Amino acid sequence: MKLKVGILGATGYTGAELLRLLVSHSGVEISWLTSEKFSGKKISEVFPQFRNLLDLECVNIARLGTLSKVDLAFSCLPHGTSMHFVEKLLLAGARVIDFSADFRFRDGDIYESWYKVKHTYKNFLEEAVYGLPEIYREKIRGAKLVANPGCYSTTVILGLAPIVSEGLLKEDSVIVDSKSGLSGAGRAPSLEHHFSESNESASVYGVKGHNQRPEIEQELSNLTGNPVNVTFIPHMIPMSRGILTTIYAKLDEGKSHEDIWNSYKQYYLRDSFVRIYEKGKFPSVKNVRFSNFCDIGVGFQEGVFISVVTLDNLGKGASGQAVQNMNIMFDFPEDEGLKYPGMYP
Amino acid sequence: MKLKVGILGATGYTGAELLRLLVSHSGVEISWLTSEKFSGKKISEVFPQFRNLLDLECVNIARLGTLSKVDLAFSCLPHGTSMHFVEKLLLAGARVIDFSADFRFRDGDIYESWYKVKHTYKNFLEEAVYGLPEIYREKIRGAKLVANPGCYSTTVILGLAPIVSEGLLKEDSVIVDSKSGLSGAGRAPSLEHHFSESNESASVYGVKGHNQRPEIEQELSNLTGNPVNVTFIPHMIPMSRGILTTIYAKLDEGKSHEDIWNSYKQYYLRDSFVRIYEKGKFPSVKNVRFSNFCDIGVGFQEGVFISVVTLDNLGKGASGQAVQNMNIMFDFPEDEGLKYPGMYP
Amino acid sequence: MKLKVGILGATGYTGAELLRLLVSHSGVEISWLTSEKFSGKKISEVFPQFRNLLDLECVNIARLGTLSKVDLAFSCLPHGTSMHFVEKLLLAGARVIDFSADFRFRDGDIYESWYKVKHTYKNFLEEAVYGLPEIYREKIRGAKLVANPGCYSTTVILGLAPIVSEGLLKEDSVIVDSKSGLSGAGRAPSLEHHFSESNESASVYGVKGHNQRPEIEQELSNLTGNPVNVTFIPHMIPMSRGILTTIYAKLDEGKSHEDIWNSYKQYYLRDSFVRIYEKGKFPSVKNVRFSNFCDIGVGFQEGVFISVVTLDNLGKGASGQAVQNMNIMFDFPEDEGLKYPGMYP
Amino acid sequence: MKLKVGILGATGYTGAELLRLLVSHSGVEISWLTSEKFSGKKISEVFPQFRNLLDLECVNIARLGTLSKVDLAFSCLPHGTSMHFVEKLLLAGARVIDFSADFRFRDGDIYESWYKVKHTYKNFLEEAVYGLPEIYREKIRGAKLVANPGCYSTTVILGLAPIVSEGLLKEDSVIVDSKSGLSGAGRAPSLEHHFSESNESASVYGVKGHNQRPEIEQELSNLTGNPVNVTFIPHMIPMSRGILTTIYAKLDEGKSHEDIWNSYKQYYLRDSFVRIYEKGKFPSVKNVRFSNFCDIGVGFQEGVFISVVTLDNLGKGASGQAVQNMNIMFDFPEDEGLKYPGMYP
Repeated sequence: MKLKVGILGATGYTGAELLRLLVSHSGVEISWLTSEKFSGKKISEVFPQFRNLLDLECVNIARLGTLSKVDLAFSCLPHGTSMHFVEKLLLAGARVIDFSADFRFRDGDIYESWYKVKHTYKNFLEEAVYGLPEIYREKIRGAKLVANPGCYSTTVILGLAPIVSEGLLKEDSVIVDSKSGLSGAGRAPSLEHHFSESNESASVYGVKGHNQRPEIEQELSNLTGNPVNVTFIPHMIPMSRGILTTIYAKLDEGKSHEDIWNSYKQYYLRDSFVRIYEKGKFPSVKNVRFSNFCDIGVGFQEGVFISVVTLDNLGKGASGQAVQNMNIMFDFPEDEGLKYPGMYP
Repeated sequence: MKLKVGILGATGYTGAELLRLLVSHSGVEISWLTSEKFSGKKISEVFPQFRNLLDLECVNIARLGTLSKVDLAFSCLPHGTSMHFVEKLLLAGARVIDFSADFRFRDGDIYESWYKVKHTYKNFLEEAVYGLPEIYREKIRGAKLVANPGCYSTTVILGLAPIVSEGLLKEDSVIVDSKSGLSGAGRAPSLEHHFSESNESASVYGVKGHNQRPEIEQELSNLTGNPVNVTFIPHMIPMSRGILTTIYAKLDEGKSHEDIWNSYKQYYLRDSFVRIYEKGKFPSVKNVRFSNFCDIGVGFQEGVFISVVTLDNLGKGASGQAVQNMNIMFDFPEDEGLKYPGMYP
Repeated sequence: MKLKVGILGATGYTGAELLRLLVSHSGVEISWLTSEKFSGKKISEVFPQFRNLLDLECVNIARLGTLSKVDLAFSCLPHGTSMHFVEKLLLAGARVIDFSADFRFRDGDIYESWYKVKHTYKNFLEEAVYGLPEIYREKIRGAKLVANPGCYSTTVILGLAPIVSEGLLKEDSVIVDSKSGLSGAGRAPSLEHHFSESNESASVYGVKGHNQRPEIEQELSNLTGNPVNVTFIPHMIPMSRGILTTIYAKLDEGKSHEDIWNSYKQYYLRDSFVRIYEKGKFPSVKNVRFSNFCDIGVGFQEGVFISVVTLDNLGKGASGQAVQNMNIMFDFPEDEGLKYPGMYP
Repeated sequence: MKLKVGILGATGYTGAELLRLLVSHSGVEISWLTSEKFSGKKISEVFPQFRNLLDLECVNIARLGTLSKVDLAFSCLPHGTSMHFVEKLLLAGARVIDFSADFRFRDGDIYESWYKVKHTYKNFLEEAVYGLPEIYREKIRGAKLVANPGCYSTTVILGLAPIVSEGLLKEDSVIVDSKSGLSGAGRAPSLEHHFSESNESASVYGVKGHNQRPEIEQELSNLTGNPVNVTFIPHMIPMSRGILTTIYAKLDEGKSHEDIWNSYKQYYLRDSFVRIYEKGKFPSVKNVRFSNFCDIGVGFQEGVFISVVTLDNLGKGASGQAVQNMNIMFDFPEDEGLKYPGMYP
């Protein structure tokens, strides 16, 4: 019997990508999906790419209580809103994968100060598992509530985990420069992301502090046991999908390029979605678009350690990772429905 | 036991797309693949997106005779070259799907006059089947040699088949204006397709006569029994994937918009990859990218019939269609490995 | 003394382009500019590209009566709105170039039926001059009110004028397939023109009838003296600037490709902004972007005449053409401020 | 009488941009231009955007000795080649602006070790002036030979000059992350810059050491009097024009954000092409494309100083800057022919 899943907020970009992945997953049946904006419409009217593939009607979330029981619910709702529905679903007995930041923090106060939202379900923070399988695979397996990581955070944590967990990082030396495609900014129209404005341009944002920084710092600190601070600046570049993150750091001495590279290979030995490039080679976004892979290349420039990480912001950075988490939680092969390469060219 | 397949010329864009599709096909095993340029290299070195997924080494085609016997070979070689290897494979007992134009024509003279190449295997022309499943499904099932259609041709034939086969087309009235993404121009670098030259531009080519025109005319003529001539102008527009073809035609009178629309719905009733849009709606490229769907919308403007067709030039326009043909030839479900929506956004 | 000009609705795309052109025009001084959305802001805050170049404050149009008298006003307001302010300006003694469709039609009823707006100043329609200098240069010179043509219309009228005015066109045979960049859709954000939606896509719109069709038909009919009907389908393709229009027509017999080409060369002999390509060559958008040129290539395919026209929708298709009109109206050299090539690459 | 100029290597991207700028410059007459690849062709055949504007024939550089004497020659030849022709021109009495790196270094050995080319005209190195007007305006005025700066170098030097010259920079703390459009990679076709490969992708290059790094280090060291080392990683992002450079540095304490911002405003007070953004605002590429502006925004993130710099790699990063240098050398107003905003949208 197939796993029954429901999706909250299915008509944004993460929702669309999740639907795409679930439609070709052999073990899943989508029971319902919600959308405030498009309730009453068929999903194939909202997203014509699903014609002949998926015909479910979007339901208003107000009717959540009337919907059938599911084994797993995905919440693609925005932070602040998501927590309320996650609670309802947990109480109704479903396991939940939440795409928002609502349950990513151990410390609710950090959440509140960065997201400017009162957290009313802090009691769930302890049992929530940060859904990065390469770090927390075993905890995810048994989790009732998985907080799916942020897209930028995934690049930085995976791009630094091997050296951070070995304690090689010099304190306060980490500079993170991320370049993201525009789907990361969501589906709501705005002047800034209007085609003619963002096409043939590039810009920086969040210089004062992007809200994925505390999440990065929490996880890197967990890995090393000491507080890790990062400087993190995200950029928008004119493509639809993908992130390339360039990380600059200083390492404690005594390790060669070869040593470091071996640490990365070793660290991700069991992780089929993380691909470490040969020394001197670095990944490009083209090779991971629309996939669940996270590609990493490491090198040095005059003593500064460089880690270059690419992934698809809606793939391994969101919906792909959520499906990977689902596979772990429900004993599917971890790569079920995700075993395909980046879309090329 | 899995179907054993070989691929000739696997390192162009159609080859890369075919590999992607076969890697996720449940019933196929890739026995070998050839590449002159990259022989000796692993395919994951040529196309890093295949790391962790496919590790086969590219073989020089000169060694074709030494390679293992396969059930099916795909030839992604260019026209003029392909026919020689297709013959060898047929004689060796394999069935063949040929991406080139070498076996698309019933009349070898037409091929020779358009392609400026001597055809040395005209004896195969009669048994070769034109690989458009929506028209020739039954013949494809038993074919030894399938000539996979051109990308533009697929848009035009599917976009007109219902009215052509009903004999509704006024003679010599067909104007075909196609807009293609740049992957259609292949992977060989050239000034014309250099990023900074083709980005933010659009241009027309082949005004004197593009070599897919005779193929379109042959197939439309077959459908109606009378010679059909078309005016066909292809354009390059700045995107990587996809074709949008706008067809203008005059119809014999007496049929309403509703009638015509019903004819289209009826004609493609059994064809899950052709999607007819509601009256007043027209497809866009976004919804078919990287998929095997062909989307069609029909309408009228002041008595002129308009058919708008979209597909992915490397999907339903090449490698996706080849996999569909393979599925038919070897009794897989026709949508095996192809059952996913266009990649969005 | 410099010409004093005012601009109504300066903060859309045509306004921004007009400002750019006027800033480098040797004989013009911008007296004021209006914007409802940004009134009170400096134009260099709205458009940071004007920092160090232009510092005028945007004025609310409600204060039009209080603004200084100008020799010329440009109205970049939308149709329906524009006419009211055009009237005021004319009565105040300014000459006016109106970008909207409000004064493009001789017959106010055609305007009303296509634009669904009541025309309350039909008395001005007779004296308004259609601002296409290649056709109406002498009338423009003395005009008080110039109706600046539509961007698509400019491509079609210039692309057909030589054969239409010679009476060579077969009736009802004209098919116009236009491909436009997205700045043509304006600056107001919408889902359809959101970056990730329109990037890597192409779509058709206005199949039922785009509102520039009656304008095209009016002008072509004027040129030949007989009613000319066209089928006109515009498309959106993923670039910021530029239009490529492909025109298909049947001609009365007896003229060779050479004859036709000579007619085009002859017709535009005095028109430095229209460039006729050699036989067998066709223009691409890249060569006209951000310029005031209109490039044309003509050819035949099996008896069907093909005219391929490119221009920049905001240049020769709007603001460049307006400046050309201004130059004519006020006795500047016609190419003053416009004498530069397309921006490349 | 107009200034007579010649151009070596006019048919690459910097040459095309230089021609565009010179064509609209009021005080210049182009006497000749060379191109090996296109010798014998008219420039308007090579670059159709120049039809009706410039009709000069490309001359083979072998015929340099036979060409008319000019007041100024621009060399757009590649490094290693350029120096030979620069010497000839200097000896023939012309002043020269060299786009290559051949005369950018005080120390010829640094050049040789980075560029792997023997420098055979080291005698000119001392008199050559590094052509960054904001730093060397007075020296440029009298220079016979100006070495036009690299595009990346211009972003970094201008982005750091105010704090470097005040001695505020903590040693060895500078991280430079640059994002460039693809025209920076030149006009020669390659797989890497083939449209379908670089579109919708982003990648890093030169991790081992890009050859503009020593140039950056030389100039920053000159400004402070002490050796300055930088970590510099360039990236390719999918747009035709423009660079956005993000610079991360640590400063000696005691200065506020306000102080730093004032230093920048003060430092560039006389420099009309450098625009300092308000505190909290940062420039985007869109606002400088095709212009000679260099836009800078400065800020802090948790004690790390951030300088964000944008310019057009072919404008202020190459040909625009060369024209600015020419204006200074020949007593034109510094902004002659350059007084227009970035092309938008």
